[in-house]
Amino acid sequence: MNNSGSPQETVPPVEGVAGGGTAYGWDDGSLQDQSLLRGVIDPSRVPSFELVHVWCMPSTANVGPQETPRPLEPVSLLAGRNERESIQIAIRPKVSWSGSSNAGVVQIQCTDLCSTSGDRLVIGQSVTLRRVVPILGVPDALVPIDMPVSQINLLPGETTAIWVSIDVPSTQPPGQYDGEFIVTATKTDAECAAQFHDKSEKYQVYRELRNCLDVIEQIDGKPVDEVVERAKSATTTLRRVLLSPSFSDFFSENGPLDMMDEDANLSIRVKLSLTVWDFVLPTTPSLPAVIGISDTVIEDRFGVEHGTAEWYDALELHFKWLLQYKISPYFCKWGNSMRVLTYTSPWPADHPKSDEFFSDPRLAAYAVPYSPVVPCGDLAKDYLQKEVEILRSKGHWKKAYFYLWDEPLNMQQYDAIRRQASDIHAYAPDARVLTTYYSGPSDAPLAPNNFEAFLKVPGFLRPHTQIYCTSEWVIGNREDLVKDIIAEIKPENNEEWWTYVCMGPSDPHPNWHLGMRGTQHRAVMWRVWKEGGTGFLYWGANCYEKATVASAEIKFRRGLPPGDGVLFYPGEVFSSSREPVASLRLERLLSGLQDIEYLKLYSSRYGRDEGLAILEKTGMYLGPERYTMDHNPIDMMRGEIFRTCRP
Amino acid sequence: MNNSGSPQETVPPVEGVAGGGTAYGWDDGSLQDQSLLRGVIDPSRVPSFELVHVWCMPSTANVGPQETPRPLEPVSLLAGRNERESIQIAIRPKVSWSGSSNAGVVQIQCTDLCSTSGDRLVIGQSVTLRRVVPILGVPDALVPIDMPVSQINLLPGETTAIWVSIDVPSTQPPGQYDGEFIVTATKTDAECAAQFHDKSEKYQVYRELRNCLDVIEQIDGKPVDEVVERAKSATTTLRRVLLSPSFSDFFSENGPLDMMDEDANLSIRVKLSLTVWDFVLPTTPSLPAVIGISDTVIEDRFGVEHGTAEWYDALELHFKWLLQYKISPYFCKWGNSMRVLTYTSPWPADHPKSDEFFSDPRLAAYAVPYSPVVPCGDLAKDYLQKEVEILRSKGHWKKAYFYLWDEPLNMQQYDAIRRQASDIHAYAPDARVLTTYYSGPSDAPLAPNNFEAFLKVPGFLRPHTQIYCTSEWVIGNREDLVKDIIAEIKPENNEEWWTYVCMGPSDPHPNWHLGMRGTQHRAVMWRVWKEGGTGFLYWGANCYEKATVASAEIKFRRGLPPGDGVLFYPGEVFSSSREPVASLRLERLLSGLQDIEYLKLYSSRYGRDEGLAILEKTGMYLGPERYTMDHNPIDMMRGEIFRTCRP
Repeated sequence: MNNSGSPQETVPPVEGVAGGGTAYGWDDGSLQDQSLLRGVIDPSRVPSFELVHVWCMPSTANVGPQETPRPLEPVSLLAGRNERESIQIAIRPKVSWSGSSNAGVVQIQCTDLCSTSGDRLVIGQSVTLRRVVPILGVPDALVPIDMPVSQINLLPGETTAIWVSIDVPSTQPPGQYDGEFIVTATKTDAECAAQFHDKSEKYQVYRELRNCLDVIEQIDGKPVDEVVERAKSATTTLRRVLLSPSFSDFFSENGPLDMMDEDANLSIRVKLSLTVWDFVLPTTPSLPAVIGISDTVIEDRFGVEHGTAEWYDALELHFKWLLQYKISPYFCKWGNSMRVLTYTSPWPADHPKSDEFFSDPRLAAYAVPYSPVVPCGDLAKDYLQKEVEILRSKGHWKKAYFYLWDEPLNMQQYDAIRRQASDIHAYAPDARVLTTYYSGPSDAPLAPNNFEAFLKVPGFLRPHTQIYCTSEWVIGNREDLVKDIIAEIKPENNEEWWTYVCMGPSDPHPNWHLGMRGTQHRAVMWRVWKEGGTGFLYWGANCYEKATVASAEIKFRRGLPPGDGVLFYPGEVFSSSREPVASLRLERLLSGLQDIEYLKLYSSRYGRDEGLAILEKTGMYLGPERYTMDHNPIDMMRGEIFRTCRP
Repeated sequence: MNNSGSPQETVPPVEGVAGGGTAYGWDDGSLQDQSLLRGVIDPSRVPSFELVHVWCMPSTANVGPQETPRPLEPVSLLAGRNERESIQIAIRPKVSWSGSSNAGVVQIQCTDLCSTSGDRLVIGQSVTLRRVVPILGVPDALVPIDMPVSQINLLPGETTAIWVSIDVPSTQPPGQYDGEFIVTATKTDAECAAQFHDKSEKYQVYRELRNCLDVIEQIDGKPVDEVVERAKSATTTLRRVLLSPSFSDFFSENGPLDMMDEDANLSIRVKLSLTVWDFVLPTTPSLPAVIGISDTVIEDRFGVEHGTAEWYDALELHFKWLLQYKISPYFCKWGNSMRVLTYTSPWPADHPKSDEFFSDPRLAAYAVPYSPVVPCGDLAKDYLQKEVEILRSKGHWKKAYFYLWDEPLNMQQYDAIRRQASDIHAYAPDARVLTTYYSGPSDAPLAPNNFEAFLKVPGFLRPHTQIYCTSEWVIGNREDLVKDIIAEIKPENNEEWWTYVCMGPSDPHPNWHLGMRGTQHRAVMWRVWKEGGTGFLYWGANCYEKATVASAEIKFRRGLPPGDGVLFYPGEVFSSSREPVASLRLERLLSGLQDIEYLKLYSSRYGRDEGLAILEKTGMYLGPERYTMDHNPIDMMRGEIFRTCRP
């Protein structure tokens, strides 16, 4: 410092708060021990918490690349038996330690969750890890990663999330299960020299070994001196190869290293604690949620021709995969004017596979096709009669329904439903016909205004429909209209009221569009339970745009809100796996269905009014425009039911 | 098909337009030859255009991950000599062909650009490639990649952009230069089996070879039978290793494969054509654009202590790197009340390095510090006198200016400027003092309203300031106010009017905030030229938040719009390189300065009115709220000047 003049004018000023753009320096201190972070950073010598932020987020959070770090706190979850509970672990680099274009690589690992009595929830079976991948920039696809250990590339300035799901088997002993999710900043494989540096280095090794082989393979009948000479030459070559840098990570002065020697002390350990309680969620979901799967999309994308063996295989794969989400899939093929052919089993009713599908206790409802799915040579009328007669004789017939037309809009379409329903009821008076609608026929108004006309549809369609399935869009935020809808339904005639969402309702109402909040996705089912519908329909889970290659980019259909009609993706888009990739929204559908089981348990003990009161008391769901944006009320609701209903 | 009943009711309907969600099928046909795309895709057998979209975008486009594909058209560019012209090549996977978590890997390659007379623009020197990396989700950082060949990971459903810049040397012969940018879908290194599948596979090879060595290395003195036996055993082991999948890519029925066999016919080739014309952009930019570099930020981030050898090195690196952008850097350290110590050279005036810095013909202006940057033991007053006396004797003295205070707001601050300026002018009556301001002193209003008071600042500060540097924010969209500002300036007294942008003006006015349009970034300089200022100041190019590790994540300062005060990033954040990483916005600053040279050339021929008319005629820039959003008018302006001004 110079020591003359007015200090105000001559001391070089220090850039501080409010100097040179606002508030320089506020973020200092997040990096603790800087000596290890100077120059080239060696992640095997630096505690990982110096290199990455790790924190937990609830399953209702949409954790995108811009998510900012929070303090790391242990995870404490509650789950019943036969329930899936999920949490997200977010990871973001504090610094870059890789020489390549990413910030660095972390190894992530999850242990089994163990109880003190030795019971386990095994990683890879009951505990699964998936990476959250953005679709149109919004976190949505859950792409499986290797378990129990995987490596993840982190990008500078971007947050990556890992979706951890725990599926508690029905037979799991209740208790507290503890485990760890471990994050370790690491060198990339290439940097570890686990890999050859490049192809030419490997080729070099290959050539040396080939020469070695040439030298020793032709020794038969050679003089002993030459044999020894050749063996010595081969020895020299082999020793050179083994001591080359290619294999340097396997030897040291004390002999070969233990290749699994990782310094676990540097890792970040996230404690996972799960309380499994003695509530077994029903195998057959209490609320049938029937979800459409377009067979046309499967045929186009996977190149399977309708009716071939591969086609049946593809449909079966989808059916079985979707059952884990406690939904009841139906396949569908759309016709003109929204006529739709729907079927839960692609096989005829007398095929053993149909019995297998329909009997699955996880299936709550199945669609019976009105006409043959695969041309079989039978007369169509005979077909229907035969199918219905077979199915009526089965125990699973109570799950059957016929879904003939999507949203009839005029008299011609309503008449078509009446005709088909008459055919069905002629063979099976107790058959359930499901009709989706949001209005009466436009060309023959049932009432002076739209809502009144909508209300009169049951009277107009009776007895040709048993399941009146109405759009939530009609209700808007007028929950009070629900009682008017229900007043038109005759449960004594085995009539039911179901609902559906599709393009509408839109934000802020609950729906499954991409970009909506996580609680908004989950609230679709809260709404159903509060309004009192006894089933739910969603038009499509795989209705993305046409493509004829399995791994082709997913595009949403023009004219639909992003994500509408798409709840999962083909695995081939993200990896070499054929297994479908779930969306966050599908997971939240499942969570919502599980919430219904909690609410139903509570209501069975304390009455439906108390069940409704708990929604209000916790602030979880008060109406289609008044539900929690935050996860806490969900945990409060579940915790309260655990507290009050446990044995 | 069954052949009975009404066909309308019994033929399975076909999902078509308007069925099952709107417009299924509209996107069909983008994939041509599907037979090669069934099952596992081998990119070495499929034309790359089946696997990826490649298209070009102008340098003013912000090409983010959601950018949708366009038709591929050849690139045709125009550039003067000593000019940089840039274009972006966008790449997006149509399908996934990688087994891992990305969609696939493409090899990108750029050739030299050659003229028919054999002149070249050499890749890696005149032609450079950088990857566009999002910052806060917005494309901004330009991270260098390997040249001439590099591999890029593509993510499913995401567009990646490569920024191609061509720097035309001053001595480059005019003419047309042609080259190619080549994109080839490829297997990853791992899939090429250039790598072992994993560490354990490599360990397996290592162990087998060690066993082999054990078998043959101790043969001395062994009976001949045993020697032969051991050699045979080693032969078997070696053969097994060599035939293992680890080395499968090196053998075939016809012996080892040529490892460099790439089928170039499968690539996508983008034609790059550049017309170099006989206009040499001046080495010294016509408009001095002085840009602040916080020395404090450099000191903190790179851990260099003020005044040490490493500190001088770090500053020199920044100075020299920034000169390529045709700007005139000054280092700065902020004090309280926006007092600022600014200096273009960290060395004293008599140091040879100062002469080197100030004499650089690319530098248009340099800041002289009022007090010592590094304490040197001299008295402060002596210091100033000595420095000024040395500098006044130099040819580069005409570039010198003193920037003492940022945006004085009250009488005390205005008085401080007057005092310091008096000191300076005592030693050098011709010294230029620069003052930034957007208002008069708040505690002694110069006029009844703010704008009138602002206008009176020159009269108030004279003769203590020569460069009146005003915020563009003051003008807003009232271009007509410019004449009032200029009327207060006395060019006959060597007074100048400069402008600056910082937090304001905000959208839709031109500025360099992240998230603004590309033409909005470039228009900052169009505005300067149209308004007639003779210089420009920007407060900070590296003023991100404090960190003490070079590779720490970049965070913008709280309270500032994203990107404000940050025009480049530390290279360490993105790779192991120490070279700073430019933002798109810095490139657009350069392009804007180059546009000024075109407009100046044109005006020198046809007069300033015609120069203003060309802005209007092409629709490029009509005012701070009326400028092109599209790139075309820029090419029209440049093309018109080329057409009318070429020899």
